[in-house]
Amino acid sequence: MSAFKQLVTHSQKISHFNHLAAIVGWDQAAVMPSGGNQARSNAMAELSVHIHSLHTQPQLADWFAQAEQESLSLQETATLRELKRQWQQANVLPEKLVQAKSLAGSKCEHAWRTQRGQNDWQGFEKNWSEVVALSQEEAQIRAEANGLTPYDAMLDIYEPGTSSTSLDSLFNDVKTWLPDLIDQVIEKQSSEHYLEPTGQFDTQKQKQLGLEVMKLLQFDFEHGRLDESVHPFCGGVPSDVRITTRYDENEFVQSLMGIVHETGHARYEQGLPKSLSGLPSGEARSMGIHESQSLFFEMQVGRSEAFIQHLAKLAGSQFDQHNPALFAQDNFQKLYTRVKKDFIRVDADELTYPAHVILRYEIERDLINGKIKHTDVPDLWDSKMQQYLGLSTQGNFKNGCMQDIHWTDGAFGYFPSYTLGAMYAAQFMAAMKQSVDVDGAILSGDLTPIFSWLSDKIWSQGSVLTTDELVKRATGETLNAEHFKQHLIQRYL
Amino acid sequence: MSAFKQLVTHSQKISHFNHLAAIVGWDQAAVMPSGGNQARSNAMAELSVHIHSLHTQPQLADWFAQAEQESLSLQETATLRELKRQWQQANVLPEKLVQAKSLAGSKCEHAWRTQRGQNDWQGFEKNWSEVVALSQEEAQIRAEANGLTPYDAMLDIYEPGTSSTSLDSLFNDVKTWLPDLIDQVIEKQSSEHYLEPTGQFDTQKQKQLGLEVMKLLQFDFEHGRLDESVHPFCGGVPSDVRITTRYDENEFVQSLMGIVHETGHARYEQGLPKSLSGLPSGEARSMGIHESQSLFFEMQVGRSEAFIQHLAKLAGSQFDQHNPALFAQDNFQKLYTRVKKDFIRVDADELTYPAHVILRYEIERDLINGKIKHTDVPDLWDSKMQQYLGLSTQGNFKNGCMQDIHWTDGAFGYFPSYTLGAMYAAQFMAAMKQSVDVDGAILSGDLTPIFSWLSDKIWSQGSVLTTDELVKRATGETLNAEHFKQHLIQRYL
Repeated sequence: MSAFKQLVTHSQKISHFNHLAAIVGWDQAAVMPSGGNQARSNAMAELSVHIHSLHTQPQLADWFAQAEQESLSLQETATLRELKRQWQQANVLPEKLVQAKSLAGSKCEHAWRTQRGQNDWQGFEKNWSEVVALSQEEAQIRAEANGLTPYDAMLDIYEPGTSSTSLDSLFNDVKTWLPDLIDQVIEKQSSEHYLEPTGQFDTQKQKQLGLEVMKLLQFDFEHGRLDESVHPFCGGVPSDVRITTRYDENEFVQSLMGIVHETGHARYEQGLPKSLSGLPSGEARSMGIHESQSLFFEMQVGRSEAFIQHLAKLAGSQFDQHNPALFAQDNFQKLYTRVKKDFIRVDADELTYPAHVILRYEIERDLINGKIKHTDVPDLWDSKMQQYLGLSTQGNFKNGCMQDIHWTDGAFGYFPSYTLGAMYAAQFMAAMKQSVDVDGAILSGDLTPIFSWLSDKIWSQGSVLTTDELVKRATGETLNAEHFKQHLIQRYL
Repeated sequence: MSAFKQLVTHSQKISHFNHLAAIVGWDQAAVMPSGGNQARSNAMAELSVHIHSLHTQPQLADWFAQAEQESLSLQETATLRELKRQWQQANVLPEKLVQAKSLAGSKCEHAWRTQRGQNDWQGFEKNWSEVVALSQEEAQIRAEANGLTPYDAMLDIYEPGTSSTSLDSLFNDVKTWLPDLIDQVIEKQSSEHYLEPTGQFDTQKQKQLGLEVMKLLQFDFEHGRLDESVHPFCGGVPSDVRITTRYDENEFVQSLMGIVHETGHARYEQGLPKSLSGLPSGEARSMGIHESQSLFFEMQVGRSEAFIQHLAKLAGSQFDQHNPALFAQDNFQKLYTRVKKDFIRVDADELTYPAHVILRYEIERDLINGKIKHTDVPDLWDSKMQQYLGLSTQGNFKNGCMQDIHWTDGAFGYFPSYTLGAMYAAQFMAAMKQSVDVDGAILSGDLTPIFSWLSDKIWSQGSVLTTDELVKRATGETLNAEHFKQHLIQRYL
């Protein structure tokens, strides 16, 4: 067997264990009774150790050296590139550092769950200082291994090929027009009137509505499910994608659009190339591209006037005991495009969301590169919030720098993916509209042309192309903020 | 670390992977969409291979040799005995035979799913001959390894310590009185009148009813769930036990008692000793003892007059739109104790069930011991059915020897567990009644005294004692058919 073939077989073996991890992980979040958690955590930790041991087997180094001498097709070359990247990621850090960071992260995250509610920055800061120090150490080692700056080496985990140079350029562009745009839109919306949902919305009916919308979005129920969990997510494996949502009896708006969002993630997974199953080249390209698909569904399609028309109609007939005025298209459109400057990222609307991300990016970049100390973060947060959204977080840690889970266990470099995703999504839509009658397709109720484009350009490509190649082939240009800007102006002004 | 401690650590490691197998197995049966099956099967096969490799690591032989020289407590000695038994079971067969039997079994079982409906004995017999031959080979190897007859070596997989000598003695006893008893009861019941459920029974309400009954039976919902699957089962792990049922909108009787049955399995699992978790000494004693707990719940408690009173009341208030006469206690009692001679084991009542099992036992014993050929089975089946239940299966293969899945993939030696379980359950009840007011406890709605006895004598014992020791300590005598006989006479005559 060629060395390349051995690497492929080994990767498929690892993918079987990843399959198990994905399913028991979904189970833990969606259906496991609480008393099962200790044994489950032990079993999952054992599985992680096993998967790590497979990624670090000594013979892999030889196989890579040999495989690089073998004659490979273009696709095989891409597979080898991704296999090697994955192998390097798994082997770059000393075991001791991985364990220390995992322990410090668990401790910090666990305490944060209480400390945040108590606005206890002092308590949090004590645990967090260790997480930051270990993350800086991690970034340093990664940086030395691949010749990047420390922060870029962390970015590379989630967004291979992206650098802070390009992020600076993209985000600085956004910063020149976003704050003004937000003000203009808020001014415009201040005179608008709309109805908010009131009364009770049965969760069985909400689920039924969600399933109908998933059907409209051509979710493949032969290869996936919809369930409930405290924190909605998209899990499982490409042949069996598990999305979750959370229902609130007092309103259906958030859960419904949450399902649209997760369906975007799910269809990407369901559409990955089956011929490359079990290989990293057959997996999703990056966190940013993954988010581009969920945001394409949620923001580009889901909040379009044409789609809102379907949503309003489906919701209205599901909740036929409620005030019909709530389900008027115009009211629905307003409900789903309301802009407000506020403190919390996860509750932010499409327009203010990038401000939250850029703020975090600028802080974590400087923190990981050692330009600021972790104790500088609250003040920096406050001044950037003032600057981008006109809000003060002075002394308000829980709605400021302590609001997100990401930093508590050292996931630095992740935040930019959200806004990269929004920009990719806008750029994909602009390109798609050159050949597809998007609104016509949505209005007709048969969205096939839209999904065919996404499947062809994005989903079926897996990770064979680099992110830049993928975006360039799909849209004719590399990523820029212009399409995103035009999309926002057109929708909100 | 002592060799014993190393064995313990190794066993706990294996138990983590068994945990994963149990959860993804439940998932496959209860929630997985059909399109996920291929990838899931591959992942589960990979996991099986891994677990097998852990059971067969070469250093284990040394550890066992050393551990047997170490000074161990009584409980540790029991743990070592069970660890060694498990290790021997995993290592006794050549890999090639395991694979060949697995392939032949899958092929035969898969084809059987179609052939049974077509009454195609000829087609089935072709595949089955290989399964039988490989099972005979397996039995021969097992027999040589532990000095038993071939069939006893198969029995030993499911019911360690039981022999066909003792089964012959138990079952021959039953055969002296069962056929007459069945006739008497059928004669007695022939003049009885009762109402069968008619109309529609909402499955949500059936589920609610099942949950209420599980609560009465003190199922621990912090450590388990109720779900649905085509074939009801009890799965999961002791800290998270997953039972399933199947609802039929046309009646609720079967599903309801099925839930009582699975709850018996579940409470045994939930009550296993936590201090021995991850070790075979902390697992259920045997298939027969497991079945004794489900049948204790279903037959000893569940069909008692006192419990039927609860069931009738709970069902009546759940289905309050139906004819109240259906939920009269007397009617419920008759519904749940109806006796009928029929072809199908899984549909058989408490009284005729042992006849189905004894028939299978006698045939599989002689088949595995090479005293009969697999082509003799249909005629033997017919003559034994005539003898025990007065029914002919001449030419009726699908309701005769082709009705069960067990033999299709070579699970010979399993059937006796069902009737052993029924006998153990009757013997446990007789012993319990010497110190516990069973009917009083059931009538009061607080069944704690019953469960305390079971927990103390059975559940908390795991596999520390041998089956014979366990039964003798719990009941003062070894297993005999007398309590079972008295129980049946008292209930049915």
